[in-house]
Amino acid sequence: MRILILGGDGFCGWPTALYLSHKGHEVAILDNLSRRAWDEELRISSLTPIAPIQQRIEAWRRVSGKTIPLYLGDLTEYATVEGAFTQFAPDAIVHYGEQRSAPYSMIDRQHAIFTQVNNVVGTLNVLYAMRAHVPQAHLIKLGTMGEYGTPNIAIEEGYITIEHEGRTDTLPYPKQPGSFYHLSKSHDSHNILFACRTWGLRATDLNQGVVYNVGVEETELDPELVNRFDYDEVFGTALNRFCAEAAVGHALTVYGAGGQTRGFIDLRDTVRCIELAAQTPALAGEMRVLNQFTEQFSVLDLAERVQAVASQMGLETTIAHVANPRVEKERHFYQAKHTKLLDLGLQPHLLNDATIAGLLERAVRYRERIDLSRILPTVTWS
Amino acid sequence: MRILILGGDGFCGWPTALYLSHKGHEVAILDNLSRRAWDEELRISSLTPIAPIQQRIEAWRRVSGKTIPLYLGDLTEYATVEGAFTQFAPDAIVHYGEQRSAPYSMIDRQHAIFTQVNNVVGTLNVLYAMRAHVPQAHLIKLGTMGEYGTPNIAIEEGYITIEHEGRTDTLPYPKQPGSFYHLSKSHDSHNILFACRTWGLRATDLNQGVVYNVGVEETELDPELVNRFDYDEVFGTALNRFCAEAAVGHALTVYGAGGQTRGFIDLRDTVRCIELAAQTPALAGEMRVLNQFTEQFSVLDLAERVQAVASQMGLETTIAHVANPRVEKERHFYQAKHTKLLDLGLQPHLLNDATIAGLLERAVRYRERIDLSRILPTVTWS
Repeated sequence: MRILILGGDGFCGWPTALYLSHKGHEVAILDNLSRRAWDEELRISSLTPIAPIQQRIEAWRRVSGKTIPLYLGDLTEYATVEGAFTQFAPDAIVHYGEQRSAPYSMIDRQHAIFTQVNNVVGTLNVLYAMRAHVPQAHLIKLGTMGEYGTPNIAIEEGYITIEHEGRTDTLPYPKQPGSFYHLSKSHDSHNILFACRTWGLRATDLNQGVVYNVGVEETELDPELVNRFDYDEVFGTALNRFCAEAAVGHALTVYGAGGQTRGFIDLRDTVRCIELAAQTPALAGEMRVLNQFTEQFSVLDLAERVQAVASQMGLETTIAHVANPRVEKERHFYQAKHTKLLDLGLQPHLLNDATIAGLLERAVRYRERIDLSRILPTVTWS
Repeated sequence: MRILILGGDGFCGWPTALYLSHKGHEVAILDNLSRRAWDEELRISSLTPIAPIQQRIEAWRRVSGKTIPLYLGDLTEYATVEGAFTQFAPDAIVHYGEQRSAPYSMIDRQHAIFTQVNNVVGTLNVLYAMRAHVPQAHLIKLGTMGEYGTPNIAIEEGYITIEHEGRTDTLPYPKQPGSFYHLSKSHDSHNILFACRTWGLRATDLNQGVVYNVGVEETELDPELVNRFDYDEVFGTALNRFCAEAAVGHALTVYGAGGQTRGFIDLRDTVRCIELAAQTPALAGEMRVLNQFTEQFSVLDLAERVQAVASQMGLETTIAHVANPRVEKERHFYQAKHTKLLDLGLQPHLLNDATIAGLLERAVRYRERIDLSRILPTVTWS
């Protein structure tokens, strides 16, 4: 298949590009390198040193013999989207090309507006360009489990059948996103559903959980292929951030009580889920929704798991319950379905001590690169 | 009360401003006059000749002795919003300040993106300016019944209690908007709910049905106070458009089978609903949702009502089932609740022949102004 990866320079996009290329697909990347620009803006950087995208692609050619065309440009500029779609003629479009940090969206008004405009307009341009140029292509869109919030009933995969006053319908699952970023993903989902119904496009909306781990097999083949590892308060997410903290003897920063429960997924499963979605496209007119995670953990559970493995490695750490910068429930019911990707063939990498140990080792290797001043939360919701 | 009307130069905003001013409230208007600019862009105009906003406000001062401060500016520019909020210090903010036409949003990609960015960014600026400057003020936001789409179960007012696998929660009612405009309103609703929960703001989201009629008591007091009357394919809505068509002997343009059923409301009830919402503000942290319509009709029902009254007035008309420019169900279940505004004290003006006759007379009076070439739909969804 010909697969275009929007945001193919990012944390999930880059390993996805290499994995699919290795599997024999024709892969291209469209990216505006904004993730690197946000590092500059916030004075943060990946724990792992990452090569420039052109160097990454050249390294992949050297290692694998495979070429990945690169389109440099912004999804909010239609000419960029149209140009890449017509030139590359993708069968599938994997859309990671959005601002993906909840704290970044909550920095201030400008960042909230930037996040919503960037994400919503980029996706609208993708939908219009698909309609005009590749109406049979399959959009594989990265959403988030955070669109659902934490309802007091089980979370279904995208749609819920409701019986009400003697009648029944299957409707989009109600959305209660918890940041302007999560809201942008919910806006996207609504726009995509409309485009599928109205124009007959085909899309899969992957509501992904929190991703942990850093590498996939392909990113480990050469130092210039290494993937980014975010540990800071804005782009770092729970498990990875805890490993970086443990590596430098920083307390593991659990926000509030730590009872916040979410779905989690190993990066190696992320790339496999994309492949599974691509292999069985949605029908014309359908927006299929798959919940893309493999296990639920509370944040405190994860901190304790990291603390235990770190201790075995001689890294003694404490757990600090820091004031929660977010407005969210710290104890709540959470039960989210995630069977559809298993039905498609996913064999999950469940979280084990070896994975945590691998992350800790990686963090220790690069611990000189950790800026301790960028760990504690400064961006607050209220 | 001090009430700031965003979009106070528009079809609903202007009569609301006069009505509330007449009732003794301190009223101000913030508007960028974009509705008039869209007339120029599309080469359309109000059936009724409308005075410039400054002249309207001067006429109102002459007629009523009351002053309405005018803030000219765009909600997508934060300085405009902040300036008006700090200077006028409103107790309530009535937010009509959005692009409100579904066909306009479907003209092309640029109009879709304009509509979503304009509406979403404007509302985000309103929320941030409230938080910073008037956190106790009550946002009264105009949404649309179109956010719900046409589900096969009864439509509740904003939230629905769902029993699922032995558990229960009350969640935002699922949204299935039918155009990029309707989607923008759904995006707004999600953003506002988040802002209320996270920042403790108070908001009422009025999901309004299709508005018919032209005047309220106050707009009839002077020719320079007259309200706009849209009959064109882009901004004209069912009943009013049918009356304009009947006045010039044009067939009544029913889209498709005409079984599309929607909630409708008389403009005189619109202004009263705003007053009722303002008198009983939402609680801090609450986004209250009220369905703002009084009766359901199918489009064909309405055409037949207009045809009958027109005939009594000697205006013989036919009903033309033109190809539906929209992608929507033409026969469907529709039952939407609308008791909360009645509970607050609304005494509806139900549709009667006198109202239709009044609209027909008005249309006949100005029939020389009707451009027949702007009636049949040219903007299509698919």
